[in-house]
Amino acid sequence: MRATFMYGPGDVRVEDAPEPSIAEPTDAIIRIVRACICGSDLWPYRGVDAPAWPMAMGHEYVGVVEEVGAGVANVKPGEFVIGSFFASDNTCEICRSGYQSSCVHRQGVGGAQAEYLRVPLADGTLVATPGIPDDDLVPHLLAASDVLGTGWFGALAAQAGPGKMVAVVGDGAVGLLGILSAKQLGAERIIAMSRHEQRQQLAREYGATDIVEERGDEGVEQIKELTDGLGAHSVIEAVGTQESMLQAIDSTRPGGHVGYVGVAHGVELPGQELFFSHTHLHGGPAPVRNYLPKLIDLIWNRRIEPGKVFDLELQLDEAAAGYAAMDERRAIKVLLRP
Amino acid sequence: MRATFMYGPGDVRVEDAPEPSIAEPTDAIIRIVRACICGSDLWPYRGVDAPAWPMAMGHEYVGVVEEVGAGVANVKPGEFVIGSFFASDNTCEICRSGYQSSCVHRQGVGGAQAEYLRVPLADGTLVATPGIPDDDLVPHLLAASDVLGTGWFGALAAQAGPGKMVAVVGDGAVGLLGILSAKQLGAERIIAMSRHEQRQQLAREYGATDIVEERGDEGVEQIKELTDGLGAHSVIEAVGTQESMLQAIDSTRPGGHVGYVGVAHGVELPGQELFFSHTHLHGGPAPVRNYLPKLIDLIWNRRIEPGKVFDLELQLDEAAAGYAAMDERRAIKVLLRP
Repeated sequence: MRATFMYGPGDVRVEDAPEPSIAEPTDAIIRIVRACICGSDLWPYRGVDAPAWPMAMGHEYVGVVEEVGAGVANVKPGEFVIGSFFASDNTCEICRSGYQSSCVHRQGVGGAQAEYLRVPLADGTLVATPGIPDDDLVPHLLAASDVLGTGWFGALAAQAGPGKMVAVVGDGAVGLLGILSAKQLGAERIIAMSRHEQRQQLAREYGATDIVEERGDEGVEQIKELTDGLGAHSVIEAVGTQESMLQAIDSTRPGGHVGYVGVAHGVELPGQELFFSHTHLHGGPAPVRNYLPKLIDLIWNRRIEPGKVFDLELQLDEAAAGYAAMDERRAIKVLLRP
Repeated sequence: MRATFMYGPGDVRVEDAPEPSIAEPTDAIIRIVRACICGSDLWPYRGVDAPAWPMAMGHEYVGVVEEVGAGVANVKPGEFVIGSFFASDNTCEICRSGYQSSCVHRQGVGGAQAEYLRVPLADGTLVATPGIPDDDLVPHLLAASDVLGTGWFGALAAQAGPGKMVAVVGDGAVGLLGILSAKQLGAERIIAMSRHEQRQQLAREYGATDIVEERGDEGVEQIKELTDGLGAHSVIEAVGTQESMLQAIDSTRPGGHVGYVGVAHGVELPGQELFFSHTHLHGGPAPVRNYLPKLIDLIWNRRIEPGKVFDLELQLDEAAAGYAAMDERRAIKVLLRP
């Protein structure tokens, strides 16, 4: 089969690789219908992360079940399924408390930018759609695999909801879908921080009521002006840098909530500033599995269109061009078609 | 009047000072009945904080109202009152949301280790007791001024409550009263981290079900062993150092809550560790004013005895000896009698 590997920073290749097979009775093999490139894939691409090379790329996927292990009962061959970046048993105490991405049996899922994928703990990880989806629904369902689920978690962690003024730091796919999520959760006002016209437009379409182009102290000042001088009730952080985390914390009113879902890189939070900020801080890897049934339902019933974040669609073999486009911010998010 | 000043690290003196007078119409002057020394007073005493010297000491107090400004309506001369370390208007949006210690008109209160004290924003800051308290109630009411309110906030921020396994990092007065608070809030199991016999005893009296003497990784290991291998649901951090913060975060299960109330000193939280911990983090200066009515009620009706943390009572003029005793951990908390 064809599969995507990163051999080092900036070096993405699609190559022939052996097809995966059932290794554990709890595994499923799925034929990938669509995969995509994640903002977090850019960390190794930019040399910020240094994994063991070559790295099998991709952790966002929708597909059709090809084969299941003897211990798999919840999904069966032929079903259209969605999973996410961590496999989880969905039965342990941590899963049952809603934190499947910290499942005690958690396993990473990698190599989804390929024709086939082995998914461990398939019963706890994969969720089948009500049927084979119409073609136009597929990108939206794919978005649920990570970026929508992550934006949703960010909005929940920030306690976005009725009566709340929400600010969103980061105008990548996760930030944009954080806006969509805050809107779905009933937020009153949603301030997007973006200086990129196309992204501003999608932000507004997803529910942003205000745009702030400034960053740093000026950005914080703007947020405060829009929120009675106090700061937002809820701030979604969707970048993961020191600057964005402080931007998020400083934009939050005392007693407010920061939901941070950008994978932290080089972040050191100053304890005393955090202490006196009086904010609530919650985040981490989104328990996407927790939200999949709800998100699939919203998509299936055409209530939301999270797949609009895909503004570039390529063949799997063109993956390298997709990475370059996202790295250079020419594309918000790239969909790959095996 | 006599008042306590710190002239530099380790240098505490009780001296003659002018009596305070009404400066703003919203002020009250109270005659201090009891004051005490706070764990946070030890930061400058140990040279960790470097304020402008000399520093007027004391921010925990109960007393009788002597005089009020023309704009004060809620308390009147002769009433027995309790305030806390920040003055607040108790009417702004932040106060109304329960965060009086981040009131938009917040002012620090200092100089309570003295015979008289000026309290700004008296209407929003002071709470009168139902009458003049019996002598034996006074230490308990004094505890409500800071350490009990702070422990209470820590327990609330950690979401201690029914069905929860709670761990408490720090066996000072705040940690001990965090235990009392968790117990009052209905926590199922309360693990005190302490290696000090007298404090362990009081911890058990206040509701601790288990004691862990180990610190660092071994301490975390012990907490996990006591909590199904997962970590506590709720951890109260009552120290404020890098070590204690990491101890608290590492002892919390994914999805659990850390309530941190030790004033952070030299703390830099590693973002990636925090991200993957999946914990909720909330804390800061306790909005004691929020809890005073509830806490006074519990004390007045003799449901709790937070004043047991005072294990040394001195005359105001002996304040220096009180600081030394707390610094050397010979006393948990020192009560001063003007």
